[in-house]
Amino acid sequence: MGDDNRSREPGHGGTPVVGMVGAGQLARMTAQAAIGLGIEFRVLAAAPGESAAQVCARTVIGDYTSAGDLLGFGIGCDVVTFDHEHVPGAQLAVLGQVTAIRPGPEALVFAQDKLAMRNRLSSLRALSGRGVRCPRYRHVGTLADVLDFAADEHAAGRPEWPVVLKAISGGYDGRGVWICDSKEAVREVLSHGIALLAEEYVPFERELAVLVARSPKGQGACYPVVQTVQRDGICREVIAPAPGLSPELAERAQWLGLSIAAELGVTGLLAVELFESGTELVINELAMRPHNSGHWTIDAAVTSQFEQHLRAVLDLPLGGTASTAASVVMVNVLGGHDPDLYSRLVHVMAADPVVKVHLYGKQVRPGRKVGHVTVAGDDVERLRDRAWRAANYLSLGTEQPAGH
Amino acid sequence: MGDDNRSREPGHGGTPVVGMVGAGQLARMTAQAAIGLGIEFRVLAAAPGESAAQVCARTVIGDYTSAGDLLGFGIGCDVVTFDHEHVPGAQLAVLGQVTAIRPGPEALVFAQDKLAMRNRLSSLRALSGRGVRCPRYRHVGTLADVLDFAADEHAAGRPEWPVVLKAISGGYDGRGVWICDSKEAVREVLSHGIALLAEEYVPFERELAVLVARSPKGQGACYPVVQTVQRDGICREVIAPAPGLSPELAERAQWLGLSIAAELGVTGLLAVELFESGTELVINELAMRPHNSGHWTIDAAVTSQFEQHLRAVLDLPLGGTASTAASVVMVNVLGGHDPDLYSRLVHVMAADPVVKVHLYGKQVRPGRKVGHVTVAGDDVERLRDRAWRAANYLSLGTEQPAGH
Repeated sequence: MGDDNRSREPGHGGTPVVGMVGAGQLARMTAQAAIGLGIEFRVLAAAPGESAAQVCARTVIGDYTSAGDLLGFGIGCDVVTFDHEHVPGAQLAVLGQVTAIRPGPEALVFAQDKLAMRNRLSSLRALSGRGVRCPRYRHVGTLADVLDFAADEHAAGRPEWPVVLKAISGGYDGRGVWICDSKEAVREVLSHGIALLAEEYVPFERELAVLVARSPKGQGACYPVVQTVQRDGICREVIAPAPGLSPELAERAQWLGLSIAAELGVTGLLAVELFESGTELVINELAMRPHNSGHWTIDAAVTSQFEQHLRAVLDLPLGGTASTAASVVMVNVLGGHDPDLYSRLVHVMAADPVVKVHLYGKQVRPGRKVGHVTVAGDDVERLRDRAWRAANYLSLGTEQPAGH
Repeated sequence: MGDDNRSREPGHGGTPVVGMVGAGQLARMTAQAAIGLGIEFRVLAAAPGESAAQVCARTVIGDYTSAGDLLGFGIGCDVVTFDHEHVPGAQLAVLGQVTAIRPGPEALVFAQDKLAMRNRLSSLRALSGRGVRCPRYRHVGTLADVLDFAADEHAAGRPEWPVVLKAISGGYDGRGVWICDSKEAVREVLSHGIALLAEEYVPFERELAVLVARSPKGQGACYPVVQTVQRDGICREVIAPAPGLSPELAERAQWLGLSIAAELGVTGLLAVELFESGTELVINELAMRPHNSGHWTIDAAVTSQFEQHLRAVLDLPLGGTASTAASVVMVNVLGGHDPDLYSRLVHVMAADPVVKVHLYGKQVRPGRKVGHVTVAGDDVERLRDRAWRAANYLSLGTEQPAGH
């Protein structure tokens, strides 16, 4: 943020310009947070109808895989950040010549490349000393590699199947994780010719997530640890804080999030998805951006994750992370068969004046995330009932919360 | 919202378009709320640099006194609402031919014309039966009229001076209220040739405000009654709920807000500014839009006033109005002598990670509202200290909260 940038907008007291590559719902909700901070926020969207492009006054249309488009976008920004992990490394290097990139490419690689992430995290001795580990994993290229991995698991006294296959980066057809029960299933995944990891299938009691922010100055802040429920690879429900989580495990998860952020040099948000497995915490995935597990913070934390991400990438002091309610439940709204979400919204609002509905302006397609609902209060089970009722009504769905 | 509107945006499930005339900070914060509701929000701005125009993807540049500009704006909207009261009645009538106007002209007139408001509220017998009244007032055109009014006050055993003069609509030089201590002061105000009311100077313990929403279907919702502090005609501090207000007075104020909204046929928000004077509530001003006394709701109510206004004008069910904290303090940030608000923001955030700062993107000019801060918690006096410290630092000001 040099003097040239400050002089660009003298009328607004030298406020910086933050650019976000990608214009999905994460960028949309970041745009909402940017309004309150009085900064200028721009998005790089593929098309004007995208979720964030609909609401952001400074939308640039372009292709995030094009170095030229990224340069054009970056030149006007003091800081560029991301609503996804898909900008290739070579293009990031070009973008870095004209603006600050946060998180930086040297950190972002661990959110882009699961093999690099597994190798890096496995090398952190401090983690294993505290009952945190990665799943056993191996880079695989052929069916024989996968069968070898399964056989080694079996030889060590663990089940041979299922084997989890993960795309090292990206995936295909919107998926990046396959739980394979047989040779045939493995062969099907291998047929797509993408780079893969094999991982053990971790038996877990539940999934947790920890969300931290870290600024370039090194300040860290951590939100309460949450419980998440995923179905078919999509986050469905988040409960904050994770019910009944022991203080020891909560502290360990928070320590873990802050440690990884510091070790990898993350700036901005870092979400760590975890399995609670016996007395261990097993690291599932990393994301370096606002995360679905943090949507509850908009309505029920002192600082929303979206404001926090902006504060972190701008190297502003981080905001308070406490929840403003005893319990908070967030349920994603998936598209159903009725495209008219708005008419359904009326009924949800009438039924429950306290539920907070967030719609993303996205065309309804079955199974697509088109919004989320949040309810805060005291009694977790009643909050879950209310949140699921609202989400199901909007989705024209009939899903039940887990355990019902 | 007929079928023609639904078919306009089939991809987004028939979401409606709300237009707001005016692009100040109220429109800016309404734009922020609209993002979460997934509706399309447009503003009619005089210039692209205005507070809301900076952040709203659908900004139309035009003149709110031009029937042509209003028509062009209104044709694309399902509902048009306002961030100020200044659209003349004739232009409202034109606008009403192409779109729904909420609040409607027949209600809005009471926010535009103080004589009409005083006459109408004074005719409501229910109010005086419950210890609510308007200040004594008189339409005045000449010095003799004002001196007559003062003499009548004196004859009834009340002080002759000061006399309050109010512009019936608008004002000049940004002001609409003058507290006159002498004939000379009255003469000065009269010299500007605007239509005036004379009103008694109401001795009060403090100022209160009550904020209600009312939908076209007639649903009403009321926020907790707040205490406000005005200086030089500018709202400086709001405390929610009003400390130590008796339950009886609180209930009376809420009844009053809901009654006036229903009597005047208001749709959207109605703010009623009150004097607490002995055992009476005296009605000072009305506004039919989001109001400075409701800014605290963004951070510390189930439903922010901006979302509530949108819900009301769209005839959606209204949202919960409870505060999420025991006490909330909001202090406005006035421009000081340092134009670089953003650099000052860094220090405020470092000093207090829980204070919520809202900046409006407005050029800093001494005394101009450029933002506000909100702090929620338990101990009102400590919250006030923190809020004033943050606001003063941003303003480069040294003002003290009242009573310090």
